Amino acid sequence: MTPQPSPFLAACRGSRPERTPVWFMRQAGRSLPEYRRAREGISMLESCRRPELVTQITLQPVHRYGVDAAILYSDIVLPLQAVGIDLDIVPGVGPVIAEPFRTRGDLDRLPELDAAHVPFITQAVTDLVALLGDVPLIGFAGAPFTLASYLVEGGPSRDLTRTKALLHGDPGLWKSLLDRLSQISGEYLRVQLAAGASAVQLFDSWAGTLEPVDYRDRVLPASAAVLARAAAERPDAPRIHFGVGTGELLGSMGRPAGASVVGVDFRVPLDEAVRRIGPDTAVQGNLDPAVLLAPWPVVRERVLRILRQGAGAHGHVFNLGHGVPPGADPQVLKKIVDLVHDTVPDARE
Amino acid sequence: MTPQPSPFLAACRGSRPERTPVWFMRQAGRSLPEYRRAREGISMLESCRRPELVTQITLQPVHRYGVDAAILYSDIVLPLQAVGIDLDIVPGVGPVIAEPFRTRGDLDRLPELDAAHVPFITQAVTDLVALLGDVPLIGFAGAPFTLASYLVEGGPSRDLTRTKALLHGDPGLWKSLLDRLSQISGEYLRVQLAAGASAVQLFDSWAGTLEPVDYRDRVLPASAAVLARAAAERPDAPRIHFGVGTGELLGSMGRPAGASVVGVDFRVPLDEAVRRIGPDTAVQGNLDPAVLLAPWPVVRERVLRILRQGAGAHGHVFNLGHGVPPGADPQVLKKIVDLVHDTVPDARE
Repeated sequence: MTPQPSPFLAACRGSRPERTPVWFMRQAGRSLPEYRRAREGISMLESCRRPELVTQITLQPVHRYGVDAAILYSDIVLPLQAVGIDLDIVPGVGPVIAEPFRTRGDLDRLPELDAAHVPFITQAVTDLVALLGDVPLIGFAGAPFTLASYLVEGGPSRDLTRTKALLHGDPGLWKSLLDRLSQISGEYLRVQLAAGASAVQLFDSWAGTLEPVDYRDRVLPASAAVLARAAAERPDAPRIHFGVGTGELLGSMGRPAGASVVGVDFRVPLDEAVRRIGPDTAVQGNLDPAVLLAPWPVVRERVLRILRQGAGAHGHVFNLGHGVPPGADPQVLKKIVDLVHDTVPDARE
Repeated sequence: MTPQPSPFLAACRGSRPERTPVWFMRQAGRSLPEYRRAREGISMLESCRRPELVTQITLQPVHRYGVDAAILYSDIVLPLQAVGIDLDIVPGVGPVIAEPFRTRGDLDRLPELDAAHVPFITQAVTDLVALLGDVPLIGFAGAPFTLASYLVEGGPSRDLTRTKALLHGDPGLWKSLLDRLSQISGEYLRVQLAAGASAVQLFDSWAGTLEPVDYRDRVLPASAAVLARAAAERPDAPRIHFGVGTGELLGSMGRPAGASVVGVDFRVPLDEAVRRIGPDTAVQGNLDPAVLLAPWPVVRERVLRILRQGAGAHGHVFNLGHGVPPGADPQVLKKIVDLVHDTVPDARE
């Protein structure tokens, strides 16, 4: 069952729906008490492998906030685990890889992913699409560079020094690694689209740590291959592309990467982002998540400013400029959804 | 004793010395074995309070690399400790504040700084200037926003959520805090200049986490006050202004802040940075520190590219786009110094 056209899909495709659509990165997660109850005693990765739990958690913010899209509850390292990488998500730390990727021999631990590795994802997406009705489901995956950074560093890292050492020091192995990850990430998106997801988001969370020249030459081709695989499965399904601190990469992350929507970090004013991304690509963003902790008049003013800045875009999906922080107040998120929905997109204050 | 004119000072002032000057942020520190020996058994902050040790450590990279400037060995939280804030630098973590800044009452714990709080700095700078001869000494301080972020968060933080909550939630207290820190930071620079430092660098390490509008309205005025205090003490001493990930702030960090040189993060190509900063301000930067771990041909190509990109600047001081990482090979840094010195600034490969 394919969802009906929606404000979210319309904006992604470059038209101006009657209301600006809104969803929040990491909307399903720790900021919701019903999420914390659902997860009690169950590890993060285990919860992602149980379709009934994935379904429940994915629906929570849709019911609570009335957002215009659901995003599959999952984690970007899940497909790595699915093909056999020994990893864990350590609370307060993030993904930790038992044996980090260091040599060509490590490629043997990265077989191609196919649908049989992730039957629980097919199940969860199928169930969700049936339950969501007109609300589109966004599938997602981590981009090859970001997945590589976890594999090479062995866990979260501020500077990605080892990852860049591999990129610069062994370009052949780097390309082989990104090619492999591109298959995994692309096939993982394809599985979600085949099961009925209406759109996908490719998270290149840490691409913003790269010099633009390295992004274009050594990273972008692999991300473009991921999005091409998604496009081959479902040409009409919007492809969103996001990373943190990517102000200097925005010109590459849209059309050159094969994306139809570019997610924008809060550091770049949205109208400036529109200029960098170009005229034929929609934008998504970009409220600073830290503003969620500000008094409502500040939140309101920032939301309205972003709506004005987005009014000149090819299409605008309202979102945060990064994920919902654990300490966010769900009532503030609800008020933002209502404010975005109640504001005529091209209004001036 | 004021140092003689130098390639470093000339480039900061917008002229083209015969060779491009070079120094490295955090050049005195963990990457040097002689540093690790000097520090054995002595805590970071304790070492910063011993003039003979500060002198020894500050000179180490000058002797080893032949860099065109020394930078005072210290830490940006030192002046906070000097006025009485209970803090420690925890290895592997960073600065940790015993009682974070949360309410207006906490302002009482931030008295004005004067020279009597930091006699060891006056001593170290005086000794260093005598020993350095023609090599200029750069004094430095943390900018009010970055100091505030440590005080408010209580330690390092990726998102500075509490700091931004204070900025948005209590603008009056925020301004009082930044005014207080501006006095401390500015007086700390003034003391270093009065003792003979030839230039200063203001580190607003975490300003790149801000939306540009907040930087301009709530942070820039305090940094400008710091640099104005330095300029009042010694109008001829160059004032360098640096932060990580500040691509969107570069237009504000130069002339509007009262800086004569803007330090550029590696994420922005240097020629693009020059455009954003404007025609009458010198630039410093901007090799990605991660490139230090790459094979020499890659390092060489990046260094030469940066020299070409900097050739159009008002003045160019070669540096990294962030500090020297602990794992950097001193021999690579030495080769970079030689390469920069041996390359005619406007050469094409």
